[in-house]
Amino acid sequence: MDRSSFGLWTVGRHTGLVVPMVTTNLFTHPVFKDGGFTSNDRSVRRFALRKVLRNLELAAELGASTVVLWGGREGSEVDAGKDVRAALDRYREALDIVVRYSEDQGCGLRFAVEPKPNEPRGDILLPTIGHALAFISTLEHHELVGVNPEVGHEQMAGLNVVHGVAQALWQGKLFHLDLNGQKGPRYDQDLVFGHGDLLSAFFLVDLVEHGGYDGPRHFDYKPLRTEDLDGVWVSAAANMRTYRLLRERAVVFRADPEVQEALRHSGVYELGESTLAPGESVAEFVVQDEDASGAAERGYGFVRLSQLALEHLVGARG
Amino acid sequence: MDRSSFGLWTVGRHTGLVVPMVTTNLFTHPVFKDGGFTSNDRSVRRFALRKVLRNLELAAELGASTVVLWGGREGSEVDAGKDVRAALDRYREALDIVVRYSEDQGCGLRFAVEPKPNEPRGDILLPTIGHALAFISTLEHHELVGVNPEVGHEQMAGLNVVHGVAQALWQGKLFHLDLNGQKGPRYDQDLVFGHGDLLSAFFLVDLVEHGGYDGPRHFDYKPLRTEDLDGVWVSAAANMRTYRLLRERAVVFRADPEVQEALRHSGVYELGESTLAPGESVAEFVVQDEDASGAAERGYGFVRLSQLALEHLVGARG
Amino acid sequence: MDRSSFGLWTVGRHTGLVVPMVTTNLFTHPVFKDGGFTSNDRSVRRFALRKVLRNLELAAELGASTVVLWGGREGSEVDAGKDVRAALDRYREALDIVVRYSEDQGCGLRFAVEPKPNEPRGDILLPTIGHALAFISTLEHHELVGVNPEVGHEQMAGLNVVHGVAQALWQGKLFHLDLNGQKGPRYDQDLVFGHGDLLSAFFLVDLVEHGGYDGPRHFDYKPLRTEDLDGVWVSAAANMRTYRLLRERAVVFRADPEVQEALRHSGVYELGESTLAPGESVAEFVVQDEDASGAAERGYGFVRLSQLALEHLVGARG
Amino acid sequence: MDRSSFGLWTVGRHTGLVVPMVTTNLFTHPVFKDGGFTSNDRSVRRFALRKVLRNLELAAELGASTVVLWGGREGSEVDAGKDVRAALDRYREALDIVVRYSEDQGCGLRFAVEPKPNEPRGDILLPTIGHALAFISTLEHHELVGVNPEVGHEQMAGLNVVHGVAQALWQGKLFHLDLNGQKGPRYDQDLVFGHGDLLSAFFLVDLVEHGGYDGPRHFDYKPLRTEDLDGVWVSAAANMRTYRLLRERAVVFRADPEVQEALRHSGVYELGESTLAPGESVAEFVVQDEDASGAAERGYGFVRLSQLALEHLVGARG
Repeated sequence: MDRSSFGLWTVGRHTGLVVPMVTTNLFTHPVFKDGGFTSNDRSVRRFALRKVLRNLELAAELGASTVVLWGGREGSEVDAGKDVRAALDRYREALDIVVRYSEDQGCGLRFAVEPKPNEPRGDILLPTIGHALAFISTLEHHELVGVNPEVGHEQMAGLNVVHGVAQALWQGKLFHLDLNGQKGPRYDQDLVFGHGDLLSAFFLVDLVEHGGYDGPRHFDYKPLRTEDLDGVWVSAAANMRTYRLLRERAVVFRADPEVQEALRHSGVYELGESTLAPGESVAEFVVQDEDASGAAERGYGFVRLSQLALEHLVGARG
Repeated sequence: MDRSSFGLWTVGRHTGLVVPMVTTNLFTHPVFKDGGFTSNDRSVRRFALRKVLRNLELAAELGASTVVLWGGREGSEVDAGKDVRAALDRYREALDIVVRYSEDQGCGLRFAVEPKPNEPRGDILLPTIGHALAFISTLEHHELVGVNPEVGHEQMAGLNVVHGVAQALWQGKLFHLDLNGQKGPRYDQDLVFGHGDLLSAFFLVDLVEHGGYDGPRHFDYKPLRTEDLDGVWVSAAANMRTYRLLRERAVVFRADPEVQEALRHSGVYELGESTLAPGESVAEFVVQDEDASGAAERGYGFVRLSQLALEHLVGARG
Repeated sequence: MDRSSFGLWTVGRHTGLVVPMVTTNLFTHPVFKDGGFTSNDRSVRRFALRKVLRNLELAAELGASTVVLWGGREGSEVDAGKDVRAALDRYREALDIVVRYSEDQGCGLRFAVEPKPNEPRGDILLPTIGHALAFISTLEHHELVGVNPEVGHEQMAGLNVVHGVAQALWQGKLFHLDLNGQKGPRYDQDLVFGHGDLLSAFFLVDLVEHGGYDGPRHFDYKPLRTEDLDGVWVSAAANMRTYRLLRERAVVFRADPEVQEALRHSGVYELGESTLAPGESVAEFVVQDEDASGAAERGYGFVRLSQLALEHLVGARG
Repeated sequence: MDRSSFGLWTVGRHTGLVVPMVTTNLFTHPVFKDGGFTSNDRSVRRFALRKVLRNLELAAELGASTVVLWGGREGSEVDAGKDVRAALDRYREALDIVVRYSEDQGCGLRFAVEPKPNEPRGDILLPTIGHALAFISTLEHHELVGVNPEVGHEQMAGLNVVHGVAQALWQGKLFHLDLNGQKGPRYDQDLVFGHGDLLSAFFLVDLVEHGGYDGPRHFDYKPLRTEDLDGVWVSAAANMRTYRLLRERAVVFRADPEVQEALRHSGVYELGESTLAPGESVAEFVVQDEDASGAAERGYGFVRLSQLALEHLVGARG
């Protein structure tokens, strides 16, 4: 989700249009220049909160299941100008009110916070998936609030987006997902999915397809300014073509016996086993003298795995 | 905390040496090349877990109150080689066992996870303050586990360390703090505190001194390779001199009536007021028609505040 | 220089307004969406070239001495879409024509290329001071073309702007200088000078004041969107106040006998001595057996120097 | 080239071993902790210079054609500690002496400077391809000195390595090339070629294969610490497999009529035409009134091109 992005909403398999997600714009109007829920100006905070509350019923009527909260204006350029702890108090106050109101009105909605490190603000509150998950854990109805990670936003902080999305999934908090491309720490590019870090895109698709995620795959990209209307449609289609290609490659990768053998050799499956045996007592465990020194010599074969993935990705296997 | 860092422990006001923090080395031995608690190799995980458990009693005997967990080897270079969700399962399993054991043995310890985005691993698990806080919220004894942020580690991800530390404080999780310097996203530099982003160091000291933090200020820097033994001592002292200078400047900054007026004008205090009035009903609030449009024209005076801070920092005021 | 920056031109000591610099806008009009001098579309290149040529006489009439060339649209997002070598051919063709025309018309102008790594294009040609200097060395009238470094642009690539400006000075190519602030690799912030990396700003002022540079100090910053008109003027003044403060501090730093002794100890002056003695023959030099092993033990005292600079900067000395 | 890298030298087609490149180690010995050619300590500079001079004849005897100069220790962590202009004087003095000596002794060697932005020094002199090319243009025998770009080093500064290598080729200065992988601005990773930014690797191979480069393709990667000896060999082979795969894909990409049509539509070939017609007079050109406004509406089809490249790369075409 972004200020001026060209959103492609996933359309369901029925003939009618499905609106899985709505959002309230708390960023375009100049009144939000210091934020909405966390503006230093209380009249703005009240305006923002009321705007979101009034949209909840509309969201429910449209049949949306998820409200995305893009807080790109919640932040600061100047450390002296924002008391971050007070801002987080106000952020929590607002979300607690919004979610309680949604529940009271029977809207049946879930909420997804979208993290972003910077731009348009110098430093945005809840800058990464991690910060957003941590904040959510403090909310009254934390079970109804999750995250909407965007590929490019994590990569703007140089972070591994696959790791971040995996942590969100692990915490049961991946409520929505914005797919696009980015070339590392720089301005927010919103490139076509896959047109940034292609290997990372491959592993993200693999995670999303095989990790139990059943929410929307939303392409949140912006056509390049160099394109005309034809180019806009071509680039919209490019997102979906790339996603499907990577999904096909991931399926074949997972099914390849050589890959499975390499995963086993690398201990990827072994990490699924608990460290203590079921029922093993800590008191007994701590006094044992097991020898792990052989593990200093062993190889994990990670490069072989990585190369197998690369070769599957480029269609040189299977 | 870092592999080869030259730690300066804060010494208390009594004549005896105080050991406020201990850590268990799960990174130097080659057996940990794929991590300790989250190694793909179960024998390594058992070895790591046992090593930490056995150190707990020693830690308690030394009178330490906090165990720092530096998980710099918990991670991967290759997305295919690490099932992040399984790794987080193992991480949680280990921490739950460790904290429970500490409680069972009456060690009276708290635990501080130290986030880091990368180096020595390509991508480290729990890469930022946010990810660590989020993970901690899932632990059995989450009340005994907090974070040990390091200035440079947050800045390696281009994040605002003052914001991150403020969120940790806000969540009651700032158990320990590592101060040093870093020049943005690049290798881990461990420069003298203040020798990286000086303005950020000033605001961090201001936060730590005026934000209710009562834990240690630990200088975790590494002397430059160009220094001899004299230079090592000079650089150790430089950390403390800089901290004290910044603390003096922060005190005078906060006491300056012009600064206080500027903070008021910017709405910094106003952010401390709740958005809804005490006792105000949401049902009434949502149907009101307050006008916030004036806030579109108003100025927040953030640059004036920033310049006042800069001038206080450079000793040109007060 | 930037698309929407609020430029503060240095005003000379005479009563009249001095226009030291002009530029031709090759970025706002949509026709330049793939660049001006290096657009793939030859009709655009011709339009851009003609626009610049026609502005030369106006520039000369205004009494400008320097034409700044901001090539922020010369670049690409997609590697397949731009033949960089052809683009550099066209860039050189354009600059050779422009400079020759200026000479033929007796405009008496010099030209300053402004490097920038990205934004608004994904990757901009001549992304750093170095790339621009290298390109300039290939021009017909290379003696009339230099660079206009901008603090924030070098820092967007994580580079040391003091080093870059020093190399430009060393090559006799620092024709103009844009001062502002930036918080490392992220979107182009155009903060007030000093409100980014303050230590780097101090050393840049020190270099510019003591390095023989006699061109303009141009503040190329953008008021924060949170400011009103008063705030705009305050922030304009903040640039100049900060510059003057840093200049004062640099003068006192250089004059401090302890600093001079520390510089001597660190070998900073010794680097000014040629490696071979004057008149020393290489044939004799190469067969000598001088012992340098003592230099392995010596300390350079760089941290002491850095701390002295920091303490001068914060007004804790002199 | 790097301190501890595992170099794979390209082996020629003859039965004998070919040593295309040599280098002199000016980085491991502690004497070089503040640099070799640019150390503040003159005795170190003399030691370094003599060491390189003495190696020239050996290089020539081994049949090497190129001497790579890795100046990773030439730089500083502390701006006060290094007079960059003096350092560049010494760097030039050293290279002028070295190249002249090589010529005088009839060694028939060329020299390649390897740029790197940081690590092990905080900021390294000649941090990018551009800065190195600019510096080289000031040398006495500049025609014998070029660059040895390394993929990861440019990406550590967030720069487009394809653009940088193209500029080096354009200036006739691509004397050597180090291929590997890197995940953006962070510590120097030296991953397997292609295991970082795969799309960029594809376009780099395309440039190198179709851009007239006839020098070595040197794989300068470091096996992951997690690998055993088998893993080292697997990863060595992975570099070459990936290079060959990308080369195959690039050949098919270039030969695809749809790609050629898309390149034509995007104006990629048109950029090869000079902006002024051959023989066109500037005086006549400047007064013409050509209309370029149509170019404001046109699309360049860059995303289509990018998607075609991606689909060729993943083997979904041809």
